[in-house]
Amino acid sequence: MPKNLILLAQADFHALNIENNAKKALKIIEESQKKGIKLVIFPEMFLVGYPVGNVLERFSQVVDENEKYLKQIAQKTKDEKVIIGFAQKDGKEIYNSIAVLSNGKIEEIIRKSNLLTNEKIYDFDVVQIDDLKCGIANFETSWNDNDFELNSLKIRKIEEFVKQNNPDILINCSASISRTNKEEEKNIFLKTLAKHFKKPIIYVNTTGSNETLPFGGMSRVYDENGEIIACAKAFEEQNFVVDLQGKNEINELPVDIENYKKQENFSFDYEKDLQRTYLSVVQSIRDYFKKTGFERAVLGLSGGLDSTVCAVLLVDALGKENVFGVSMPSKITTSGSKNDAQQLAQNLGIGFFEKSIADIFDATSNTFYDIFKNVEKNWDCRYSQSYTNDNIQARARATILWGIANEFEKCLPIATSDKSEAYMGYATINGDMSGGFAPIADITKTKLFALAKWMNKNRVQKNAIPQTIIDKRPGAELAINPKTGKPLMAEEALMPYDFLDEVIFRIENLHQTKDEMKRVEFLYEKENKISQEQKEEWLDKFFRRMSTAHYKWSIAVTAPIVDSRSINSAEYYQPIVSSRIRY
Amino acid sequence: MPKNLILLAQADFHALNIENNAKKALKIIEESQKKGIKLVIFPEMFLVGYPVGNVLERFSQVVDENEKYLKQIAQKTKDEKVIIGFAQKDGKEIYNSIAVLSNGKIEEIIRKSNLLTNEKIYDFDVVQIDDLKCGIANFETSWNDNDFELNSLKIRKIEEFVKQNNPDILINCSASISRTNKEEEKNIFLKTLAKHFKKPIIYVNTTGSNETLPFGGMSRVYDENGEIIACAKAFEEQNFVVDLQGKNEINELPVDIENYKKQENFSFDYEKDLQRTYLSVVQSIRDYFKKTGFERAVLGLSGGLDSTVCAVLLVDALGKENVFGVSMPSKITTSGSKNDAQQLAQNLGIGFFEKSIADIFDATSNTFYDIFKNVEKNWDCRYSQSYTNDNIQARARATILWGIANEFEKCLPIATSDKSEAYMGYATINGDMSGGFAPIADITKTKLFALAKWMNKNRVQKNAIPQTIIDKRPGAELAINPKTGKPLMAEEALMPYDFLDEVIFRIENLHQTKDEMKRVEFLYEKENKISQEQKEEWLDKFFRRMSTAHYKWSIAVTAPIVDSRSINSAEYYQPIVSSRIRY
Repeated sequence: MPKNLILLAQADFHALNIENNAKKALKIIEESQKKGIKLVIFPEMFLVGYPVGNVLERFSQVVDENEKYLKQIAQKTKDEKVIIGFAQKDGKEIYNSIAVLSNGKIEEIIRKSNLLTNEKIYDFDVVQIDDLKCGIANFETSWNDNDFELNSLKIRKIEEFVKQNNPDILINCSASISRTNKEEEKNIFLKTLAKHFKKPIIYVNTTGSNETLPFGGMSRVYDENGEIIACAKAFEEQNFVVDLQGKNEINELPVDIENYKKQENFSFDYEKDLQRTYLSVVQSIRDYFKKTGFERAVLGLSGGLDSTVCAVLLVDALGKENVFGVSMPSKITTSGSKNDAQQLAQNLGIGFFEKSIADIFDATSNTFYDIFKNVEKNWDCRYSQSYTNDNIQARARATILWGIANEFEKCLPIATSDKSEAYMGYATINGDMSGGFAPIADITKTKLFALAKWMNKNRVQKNAIPQTIIDKRPGAELAINPKTGKPLMAEEALMPYDFLDEVIFRIENLHQTKDEMKRVEFLYEKENKISQEQKEEWLDKFFRRMSTAHYKWSIAVTAPIVDSRSINSAEYYQPIVSSRIRY
Repeated sequence: MPKNLILLAQADFHALNIENNAKKALKIIEESQKKGIKLVIFPEMFLVGYPVGNVLERFSQVVDENEKYLKQIAQKTKDEKVIIGFAQKDGKEIYNSIAVLSNGKIEEIIRKSNLLTNEKIYDFDVVQIDDLKCGIANFETSWNDNDFELNSLKIRKIEEFVKQNNPDILINCSASISRTNKEEEKNIFLKTLAKHFKKPIIYVNTTGSNETLPFGGMSRVYDENGEIIACAKAFEEQNFVVDLQGKNEINELPVDIENYKKQENFSFDYEKDLQRTYLSVVQSIRDYFKKTGFERAVLGLSGGLDSTVCAVLLVDALGKENVFGVSMPSKITTSGSKNDAQQLAQNLGIGFFEKSIADIFDATSNTFYDIFKNVEKNWDCRYSQSYTNDNIQARARATILWGIANEFEKCLPIATSDKSEAYMGYATINGDMSGGFAPIADITKTKLFALAKWMNKNRVQKNAIPQTIIDKRPGAELAINPKTGKPLMAEEALMPYDFLDEVIFRIENLHQTKDEMKRVEFLYEKENKISQEQKEEWLDKFFRRMSTAHYKWSIAVTAPIVDSRSINSAEYYQPIVSSRIRY
């Protein structure tokens, strides 16, 4: 048996389901003992899970429970060492800590941060595995401009530790999510550290999604030159055994983490991020359903891009037998849309039914007639043009989807809105905004087109998405455009998505102001002649709509983080009352 | 003219509406110059407002704008001193800072905390006003067990400053919200500090509500013995002039801050908090509408307690001409409820219309029939009993309210759910949960009964609320109880509200576990004989329902904070996936 066999326990935890996590840990430890593993490394916060919101502060019995299980796990250890993340109570404080377990005991506890105050703690320790001196340096693996510099506090603290203890290897327990560019940036960070300290680094990450957070796995080992010498799979649980003296598995990843350059300009070339996006969202849907106890999904199929992409992702996450699509045409719905919806459902092999919403629309509209006449007696501020009829349709559809979820067990309705629409507030409250989970709410429209094409090419079943859906321009089909006499297209109501998505990129990645954007050239302008006046009109419209969309963001349905920045409420919050902000 | 006239500028800021705040500051300074004021003290963060979410990090131009206005304001100052809160950029960091302005310049900047990391900064300064040496000790006025102790870091830092500088007086700029017990605790804190340091303390607070935060004013001055020698009004803007050598106004407050004892046991005696609650919620409604640009409110009047209390609060906040009530009976609605709704509207003098939802219900129900038959072909998991019909009614009503808001300018629909219901998830998604603002979402049912009685007694118009509404037990009237043949009462579906609200109190204030609650005696038990089995059944039901209510909390409508703890998403968040938590 080779010496120094190490197990990177790339396991999925369930946030705050401590019994589940503890049983999983015990099983992994038991199996590793049979294999003669000397060191088992679990991810950060493994016992308690993550995210924890502020539950630990409100319900401290949860922390007691995870500490009780920690002791039980410690009792099962023999002469191997087990490193595992948990929540540690100390007086009134609660810490994100790592325990070293061995010989039936908790041998060491190393703190990473205060879970109540977010204060970082630079705590390190050395664990001896036979002749291997392991330094547990539980640093944040997140990269940002503030803390990556080699003279930053974080790096200097690790440096002090390395100088004093001269470990053979550095170990980092992580719970780090996958999102656009993140794995690439993490790689630069870990590689640079390994080279800087001239020490191998073992990085253990969790996998599986919890709520909005898609953990990506990809646990790995760097040698002292910063080369990856072992790499676990992405988005998959794996008991990944590493032999530091031998040759190890290096799994292919869905992102090319070794060739990365920070993107300074907007581009429609989403290709490099599509496989990762696909895997991440499929995992997030699957785990959200599994961890909330749901099994089935129902969604409206409009024949448009958003509901189509959602349907495919749902099938791959839950199985086609667990997905039901409803086509709910109104008088405005085109026959092309109805056909596309039906064709998609047929291709995917999911349950499908078409039912007109005309009766609900008419009953609602008639009821409104009486009421509005009466309100007019009190208020003289009736709009000459309103969205009332558009919204009746969207709300009737949501009522149907929620009705199905109310009537059938373990069924969640799906909110199919995308990120471009979210920025524009272009979705109906209690209508298409509504649902139990929003799979694509962090993906822009132009990226969704690319994802649809990618899935048609790369899924086992090729071309499940009818080409007509990919070829047509998006339209909600809620109103008629008086100029064309046809259903109003989204880009007529808003602006071209190619332009819109570049504004989002410039806000999120380049932090440009509205005035700066007025001065720089957009990719859209290179291919389309537009006047400066037109451009400024679009930009003004964008920021005006965005500034009043925050109410909708505040009640947005849980959605997995996908993009390098997101408008997820945990990441971005702007008070609703502050719509007069100058961007 | 008396020496050392000080102005406590108890002014309402508008979060992130910097131009508005700057103009208000300039006007106050101009007027104070005419009055010969030597020192003008504004609240914390006055220029930029609060809350700011993470806008300052994402859009740093907003910080530039507030610093530009700070310079403009400084230019207007003469030989007086102006102390004003703003957001200060320094490199990559942004601080909650106070500027001292005088003679056309920014003379000093004192930091309170890092707005990006929440790190507290203990920065102090001395400002000389003629012969008065003012120490600006910009400490947090929040009290909690961790930082109140006299040997805590915060107090020790102030102590050092006082010893070194020996100021005549301490000044604290605050933006501190009003909530149950908070003003009382703040008073103990400030009083204790004044006595401990033997220094007078000037405490300047903002007023007005921003989003969920009701600032309460009540700026005041303590003498060196901890006695209040000047006190501004509650929930009102006031340019409060204080003459430290003379006699000053001491306004009566809506809470008795001098007689307070921490509540260790649940009690139905809400009396001492009702006036404050009323003023705070009325202010929050008024300011939410004003600051988002809305003017009118529409709400469903069911004849029940929640919608009734909301209607009264809306009338007092927006004026009766801006409130419209709709009674939307279904087949289950009793004539008593219809009469109560109409009577209330008549008493309040608001617009009112009764319109049956039967047509929408029937059309929806018929549409469902076809769809459910078809879904059953795919899924064999149809419930034998479901909430489908209950929910159709609640959703039809929300569709009507949103329809009115879509059709009439500047109109918001009101979500009328209360805190007891929120804990139980006892509200319909896209139904009564839905709206533009939720005035009473942080008030429990038993407290709402007390508030209704208080309003009947203390408003200018006495007894606006029909006694029948106060006397009857709550019921959603969405379903028939098969046991009674009458509409199902909320307490039949849940448990007695008297018991339920005590569970909430024990969670929020005593931090008890479910097991602890099983062992202690509830107030309800003193007056009603219930078996231990019954009690445990209710407790199990409470925690089971609460643990799955988090999805609903995640999409809950903006509501003002009222209670000493709240389930507002900024204050309490439990991941939806963690419903298997052991409380």
